[in-house]
Amino acid sequence: MAGTDGRSAAAGSGGPAIILIDPQLGENIGMCARAMLNNGLTDLRLVRPRDGWPSEKAVASSSGALEKGVEVKVFETTAEAIADLQGVYATTARPRAMTQVVMTPRAAATDMRSRVNTGQQIGILFGAERKGLHNDDVALADVVVEAPLNPAFSSLNLAQAVLLVGYEWYQAGVEKAPVEQVMGDTRPANREELIGLFEHLERELDDCGFLLPVEKRPTMTRNIRNIFLRANMTEQEVRTLRGVIVGLVKYGGRYRKTD
Amino acid sequence: MAGTDGRSAAAGSGGPAIILIDPQLGENIGMCARAMLNNGLTDLRLVRPRDGWPSEKAVASSSGALEKGVEVKVFETTAEAIADLQGVYATTARPRAMTQVVMTPRAAATDMRSRVNTGQQIGILFGAERKGLHNDDVALADVVVEAPLNPAFSSLNLAQAVLLVGYEWYQAGVEKAPVEQVMGDTRPANREELIGLFEHLERELDDCGFLLPVEKRPTMTRNIRNIFLRANMTEQEVRTLRGVIVGLVKYGGRYRKTD
Repeated sequence: MAGTDGRSAAAGSGGPAIILIDPQLGENIGMCARAMLNNGLTDLRLVRPRDGWPSEKAVASSSGALEKGVEVKVFETTAEAIADLQGVYATTARPRAMTQVVMTPRAAATDMRSRVNTGQQIGILFGAERKGLHNDDVALADVVVEAPLNPAFSSLNLAQAVLLVGYEWYQAGVEKAPVEQVMGDTRPANREELIGLFEHLERELDDCGFLLPVEKRPTMTRNIRNIFLRANMTEQEVRTLRGVIVGLVKYGGRYRKTD
Repeated sequence: MAGTDGRSAAAGSGGPAIILIDPQLGENIGMCARAMLNNGLTDLRLVRPRDGWPSEKAVASSSGALEKGVEVKVFETTAEAIADLQGVYATTARPRAMTQVVMTPRAAATDMRSRVNTGQQIGILFGAERKGLHNDDVALADVVVEAPLNPAFSSLNLAQAVLLVGYEWYQAGVEKAPVEQVMGDTRPANREELIGLFEHLERELDDCGFLLPVEKRPTMTRNIRNIFLRANMTEQEVRTLRGVIVGLVKYGGRYRKTD
């Protein structure tokens, strides 16, 4: 029971446990831990790690993830590693003869979120490097997760498989705007500022005869305004451009070399 | 012009070019090539690769991607590497003081698809290991791509950054059903088969007195039917269960040891 409690605590983030079955290289385990923490996952379970545990190589390749949050537990069998879980997902690129529900990582992430929201503990099985999952392990899972990838070249390494599934889990919980306009210590220009710029420019263009003949003036000014409108300028940029106009008109050519 | 034509041909898949600026280790370049081909991308451009090109280490770590489709071109400057492109995306995890449109990889993938659908050639800039992109390179891009990741641990290695952005590009073009029921050489059971199973079972349960008292029979049979309905069985599985019933009734206990 202490073990089960410990696992529950490790899964405290609520995210899925990552369960590596027969992982071989310590480096790969460390890179999986890194990919987990990138996506806020901290419950790493190893079933029969070939080179033993703990592993200095894993710590080195985890870029700090094994010291900054990812907790590791080691198990003898898959059944023990998933004993406390209510939802189990198996990642595999290979079609199986068994009858299974197969989801993309994205659909699986939505499914995982809804299970976690109803209080379930869940985990994701990953097979050994090259070999993948054994059918007996796939049969313990509720859902098979298969990433749509180039069918002619679909093999991922272990850490990259963990990254994709973890990434989809994390994205399904993110509320960040998919597109935003980032600007430093400034704000988007308002229309008054933009029109101020346009009128300033057009006044100077009138004064230098650029907007002639007069019957073409409306089209020409519209086209010029449109260029600047599309640029989605900040108020700082509007001020910069007004400075450019002043500079050109007032000081234009003043320092030109007479060559 | 020949160079430009060559690049156009390499980008023939229509997918974005992947542009690595100042990449250091050949191994990392190879792993980027692998992540590219996983997602159907074949146009890899290197700006000033530190350890030169070609690279045996890159070939070894690409798992065949550099021999099976990914084409590499080397450039002296970022400007030359993107000369033929109409849309340029810069990947960076670090906020910049510049004013830029920032998109998640998913939003950027939609944006890329719409550009490609209108005939544009596009590319994605990735900075050197650890250092990331220089501000001068970011300033050449139309869009900054930033993946929402654990803010306390967001650093990805180069190949994993390429994988995430490539993965989103690929997913945006995939029409695979996000959830499907995969079964071997069989098909889902139809209702006639299911009801045949239910009636078979209930007949046997009546015959052994399980469904008594009679006033509880409707509730009991409904509950039992519900269990099997939720299992989404195949016709093969229905036949298997009918065999189980026959076996239990006809041969039940026959081989029991008399202990």
